[in-house]
Amino acid sequence: MARRKSGGKALKIIPLGGLEQIGMNITAFEYGNSIVVVDCGLSFPEDNMLGIDLVIPDITYLQDNADKVEAIVITHGHEDHIGALPYVLKELNVPVYATRLTTALIEGKLKEHGLLDVVSRNVVSAGDIITLGAFKVEFIRTNHSIADACALAITSPAGTVVHTGDFKVDYTPVFGDAIDLQRFAELGRKGVLALMCDSTNAERPGFTNSEKTVGKKIDALFSEHEDSRIIVSTFASNVDRVQQIIDAAYRHGRKVVLEGRSMVNIIQAAAELGYIDAHENTLIDIEDLKNYPDKKTVIITTGSQGETMAALNRIANSTHKILQIKPGDTVIFSSNPIPGNEKAVARLINELSMKGADVIFQDAHVSGHACQEEIKLIYTLVKPKYAIPVHGEYRHLKAQAGIARELGIPKENIIMMAAGKVLSINKNGARITDEVQTGAVFVDGLGVGDVGNVVIRDRQQLAEDGILMAVMTLERGTNMVVSGPDIVTRGFIYVKESDEVMDEMREVLNNAMDKIHEKNIMDWGKMRNIIKDALSGYVWKKMKRRPMIMPIIMETDQE
Amino acid sequence: MARRKSGGKALKIIPLGGLEQIGMNITAFEYGNSIVVVDCGLSFPEDNMLGIDLVIPDITYLQDNADKVEAIVITHGHEDHIGALPYVLKELNVPVYATRLTTALIEGKLKEHGLLDVVSRNVVSAGDIITLGAFKVEFIRTNHSIADACALAITSPAGTVVHTGDFKVDYTPVFGDAIDLQRFAELGRKGVLALMCDSTNAERPGFTNSEKTVGKKIDALFSEHEDSRIIVSTFASNVDRVQQIIDAAYRHGRKVVLEGRSMVNIIQAAAELGYIDAHENTLIDIEDLKNYPDKKTVIITTGSQGETMAALNRIANSTHKILQIKPGDTVIFSSNPIPGNEKAVARLINELSMKGADVIFQDAHVSGHACQEEIKLIYTLVKPKYAIPVHGEYRHLKAQAGIARELGIPKENIIMMAAGKVLSINKNGARITDEVQTGAVFVDGLGVGDVGNVVIRDRQQLAEDGILMAVMTLERGTNMVVSGPDIVTRGFIYVKESDEVMDEMREVLNNAMDKIHEKNIMDWGKMRNIIKDALSGYVWKKMKRRPMIMPIIMETDQE
Repeated sequence: MARRKSGGKALKIIPLGGLEQIGMNITAFEYGNSIVVVDCGLSFPEDNMLGIDLVIPDITYLQDNADKVEAIVITHGHEDHIGALPYVLKELNVPVYATRLTTALIEGKLKEHGLLDVVSRNVVSAGDIITLGAFKVEFIRTNHSIADACALAITSPAGTVVHTGDFKVDYTPVFGDAIDLQRFAELGRKGVLALMCDSTNAERPGFTNSEKTVGKKIDALFSEHEDSRIIVSTFASNVDRVQQIIDAAYRHGRKVVLEGRSMVNIIQAAAELGYIDAHENTLIDIEDLKNYPDKKTVIITTGSQGETMAALNRIANSTHKILQIKPGDTVIFSSNPIPGNEKAVARLINELSMKGADVIFQDAHVSGHACQEEIKLIYTLVKPKYAIPVHGEYRHLKAQAGIARELGIPKENIIMMAAGKVLSINKNGARITDEVQTGAVFVDGLGVGDVGNVVIRDRQQLAEDGILMAVMTLERGTNMVVSGPDIVTRGFIYVKESDEVMDEMREVLNNAMDKIHEKNIMDWGKMRNIIKDALSGYVWKKMKRRPMIMPIIMETDQE
Repeated sequence: MARRKSGGKALKIIPLGGLEQIGMNITAFEYGNSIVVVDCGLSFPEDNMLGIDLVIPDITYLQDNADKVEAIVITHGHEDHIGALPYVLKELNVPVYATRLTTALIEGKLKEHGLLDVVSRNVVSAGDIITLGAFKVEFIRTNHSIADACALAITSPAGTVVHTGDFKVDYTPVFGDAIDLQRFAELGRKGVLALMCDSTNAERPGFTNSEKTVGKKIDALFSEHEDSRIIVSTFASNVDRVQQIIDAAYRHGRKVVLEGRSMVNIIQAAAELGYIDAHENTLIDIEDLKNYPDKKTVIITTGSQGETMAALNRIANSTHKILQIKPGDTVIFSSNPIPGNEKAVARLINELSMKGADVIFQDAHVSGHACQEEIKLIYTLVKPKYAIPVHGEYRHLKAQAGIARELGIPKENIIMMAAGKVLSINKNGARITDEVQTGAVFVDGLGVGDVGNVVIRDRQQLAEDGILMAVMTLERGTNMVVSGPDIVTRGFIYVKESDEVMDEMREVLNNAMDKIHEKNIMDWGKMRNIIKDALSGYVWKKMKRRPMIMPIIMETDQE
């Protein structure tokens, strides 16, 4: 990035998550005394974050500057863009701006957290321009794998930044209009300071196919499998996808059952807002399924990622209350596995196959993100001075940086951001000027932030080799053993009281106690360390394991 | 499968692993008083098998019939075919038959386990026929992603069974000859009872490309990146792949360093046996790397699956003793992620990219398994009466069953096996007649089988929410509390002694103790349950978590 001095007041752009921690999209735009926050997403825990349910961003910076925060504006309704809202709004109650369907999804979350009466929501439409302190924020229609997605043009005295959100270019969308390319062009004409563009598919050449191509594929699959019951699994939030499945069912004279909590909730909300046309008498209740022949029914269900508790997994495992797989069923995955879910999805496919289902796993899905040619199109229309790749893993951001170079943006004007970095930018220059506190806050059950790295490390050790407790009661003053020492283990190895290894561990423990008495050690900390070292040395030598070793020493009054 | 009565003595085919538990390939062939075991593989633990290092098959059936077991014959040297050998041979010392490179790899394992002087090894060559009790076993050359792979023709009075092992058809292999299609044809002419054929790629149409195509691609990549240091990561056991990388380095005037324990060991063994031609002065020691300009060097390394402790990960994370990534390095992944490793590989690629490496992740790999057209070729040459798909997840076996149907094998002659099922087969019929004990034995550190499902379930609970211990000492006879009760937690939440939640838990615990005293409960089991219920009820209500709750009660003599 440019090393020259920046003149004039600068806009600060601060990603507060979402770069190392994929999914947690939240970015602060700060100019003078105004901060506008774009998106507020959660992420799902990595494999090593044991027991964690969700991960949300650390918003210390926003809390420290709470008086400046004007609003949170949302690009679209996916979890990685709205999921942290209830948690963040509890700490920082500011107005939220989003389009209709997005607002409906947010309201579902606020309701669960009892925040519906507390938080101010503002429904906007593509084309709207809202003033938020020093900023004007314009919502621009885009296409994505959820309806009502928008890009943002964020204008401050430092210039206009275009933030695409997650997007693709779909000339023939299922619902609503194509992405507003004319507006991108118009903004480009006027001059755009920086483009923050979706990088997810920046490694893929060509164009992403239109959502409509999936509809055709599903229709063809319905024709091929006209004699069997059909189960289609997809993302509940992909309202257009669900619409196309309903359309195909209608054309083929099949009734449709929606199954899975989020499928029912989201599609119901979408239907109420007019984003779903269910055709007359096509949707039926799950209880009425038995009144129709199998070949006249379709079940649209959640669980395409192999999630343990989702409807499709329960159907496959015969733990669903009403539905189970019958030999001859056709199961269509209208989805791709999200990275990390491949094995769970494979397990689910095997389970479905073993139950006799014909599983179709290819070609009934398209991505919601722009490929290389679409990214080039947006850059060419917007003609930004600076390129700031966003949304994706580091390698995806780097792939977009490569595209920006190809399109003639000078290397020093392509800025690779990282969470917490403060980019100060205006037409005279762009540089990292500061760094603020960011990070991942763990949500475990009802607890937010009470599980930190120490607890996680303990869980990792417990998960690996379990726990070995050496318990004893000492007499106060004399430190004579009045009870124990006993050894108790959990998650270590399967041992009976009578096993040789138990005898050996007791002997090691007794030797350690003898040593403690011989040396007349009275300090409990030192005693614990001697016991710990003795037992861990024995266990490592004997079986090459490292359980958590925990001496528990109690004390009684002297007799 | 056929329901008609089978006349004459039957061959029994018993998979002892490798169907539900992918990877653990081991199959018993039994006729009269002879058993021949084909392969003896391990598998790697599933995500939920916490702390487990390896999984090996339960060989109770073989131990119960130890006097019948003639030998273990091995198709090729991959871990999922030889990895359990040292464990199994400790329990059941029988001769092992394998080709040269395979034997060298097995010997490496036996040496580690101190079994080299104990186990009888027999080196065979493709074309050899060995007599083992009632069986004649013929080794037939195939191609695979490791040199020296063989199919087996297993002949007993019941007929001949052809077992392909893992294979592909490579008309232009890097080392040695193409698969011996003529021998498959000859056997087919004479009449084959059953074909047990590799299903791994049965869902993929077409042919798998020749290993030689990878050599061309690597050569092209070396030309494109002639100014940078090149690091290539691949599977150590893919000797032909390593040969081609060495060849490319030699052509481009680069020196080669082998890095990673298994890379060094396997390639050294292969070179000694003449499976690797290292060209003169091409291989150098890692310490000599500094004497050559970067652009004249290649590092061939393990770790292409993102394994935490492998060389490439240590290089990427700057924890390697000698090597680290320099900006401008080219890193080529000559591999695909094995299912389940996708996320680890993605993390590694991001880490390498962040350090400034140019990461190439496509087209420098081919599969070692037959695609649909190759499977059809083998079926057409062998013309088996029965088809028994092997090697693959259930859906892959099912895909091969579909291929067999297409080729005209009647549905009732296509047999879907499962671990432990006993297939009794001869020319008059084939049916499941029995089931024997099978399963997964966990290896954790030096322990084999001492970690079972109870221990794993404990680890899962500990991993999820940690442990909460309630510790107290009671006076014998009176059950009066003489020390404690104290609360100690690990992996639960971050709490200080002074925190409200600790106060509340102590109160819950004291109330439980009061209840115990009021009701004059003297039975420790009941006391434990009351304490457990009280604490778990509180924790669930307060924070929706389920830690392991462990009352630890000690006893002292009465004063």
